[in-house]
Amino acid sequence: MSKEITKVSNSVIGRLPMYYRFLIYLKNNGINKISSSSLAEKMHLNASQIRQDLNCFGGFGQQGYGYNIDYLIDVISSILDLTNLKNIIIVGAGKLGVTLVHDIDFQNLGFKLFGVYDNNKDILGTSINNNIIQDISNIENLKTTIDVAVLCVPKEYAKQTTVFLTKCGIKTFWNFTHQDLQIYFNDIIVENVHLSDSLMKLSYKHKHKHTSK
Amino acid sequence: MSKEITKVSNSVIGRLPMYYRFLIYLKNNGINKISSSSLAEKMHLNASQIRQDLNCFGGFGQQGYGYNIDYLIDVISSILDLTNLKNIIIVGAGKLGVTLVHDIDFQNLGFKLFGVYDNNKDILGTSINNNIIQDISNIENLKTTIDVAVLCVPKEYAKQTTVFLTKCGIKTFWNFTHQDLQIYFNDIIVENVHLSDSLMKLSYKHKHKHTSK
Repeated sequence: MSKEITKVSNSVIGRLPMYYRFLIYLKNNGINKISSSSLAEKMHLNASQIRQDLNCFGGFGQQGYGYNIDYLIDVISSILDLTNLKNIIIVGAGKLGVTLVHDIDFQNLGFKLFGVYDNNKDILGTSINNNIIQDISNIENLKTTIDVAVLCVPKEYAKQTTVFLTKCGIKTFWNFTHQDLQIYFNDIIVENVHLSDSLMKLSYKHKHKHTSK
Repeated sequence: MSKEITKVSNSVIGRLPMYYRFLIYLKNNGINKISSSSLAEKMHLNASQIRQDLNCFGGFGQQGYGYNIDYLIDVISSILDLTNLKNIIIVGAGKLGVTLVHDIDFQNLGFKLFGVYDNNKDILGTSINNNIIQDISNIENLKTTIDVAVLCVPKEYAKQTTVFLTKCGIKTFWNFTHQDLQIYFNDIIVENVHLSDSLMKLSYKHKHKHTSK
């Protein structure tokens, strides 16, 4: 399958998590099969877009029969690597870090929350949802490979924290700092989260009364 | 300008906040003009994509001269309605609500944070960053028009909270509940935030070593 996957465009990849969420929702509601047109209606998308997207992975829908939901979930889950457990750490145990520990279902997304780190002596040793906040300097001496770091430090510390973490061998970052790390680092893998982008889109929709999704 | 704007596709609108952020960053670094190729390099995008996007709004770049940053900021800001102050409330003052009060620069995004609401008697009257947490039932009696509600309630309360808020006249929602509201409501404006989608995308990038943005 991997040969096919490398041809898939970024915009299709960008939509896969949304398909995945909806398919899990349908499965949890006892639905086993769905047509692209029903899926389109539920997701407020275009049916031909959905067929086009899902056909990138080998056309596993059958005309007049619909998609097998379990199968689709398995395939998308494999493409997104959700079943292969990777170690993730949270760096920065401020309000945002604490919220993520509570709100993100890491396990079901293919991640094991290995630890929460900070450099604030006042909070080291306290715990968030059974995760003891540890000193960031401990990361240097870990015997376990850490796959991903969630950056929840203030923007002004983003660069130096990333320098440190890359020296510890971490190359993949879920970046909440609003600092564009790719200006400074060429060989890292980053997914940036900018909640303000989402609010700006809402502002546009509000002005133009866009009731569609 | 509004005639032109209504023709703009959702995907272009989706990229405008990103342009806006970068242009503000450049302006704050004393840069007044930029070519589409330099902007493309900084943003890890394709120059022809940028030219195409920005030309939707009337081609205000000049060949061999570059875009005037102040002008672009003004135009995008007007399209996204960032200068027209709208009233926003946060509903749900748990960890996520508190994080948003601290981390989102509402004022600079065209919003006035009018109030923070919850129904938990234990926290009513306490304050977050100078915003006193008020009883959610007070929203019914507000004399001020509320433009947008940020939904930070648990998923299982999302529907009933939205029913209540729509009765109070609110039609636009920044939805963090992971509940698909558009199943139940036809005439509301919603921007959904799914942080897990972003983590799934990172999982894909990590597996395939995508170092591009």
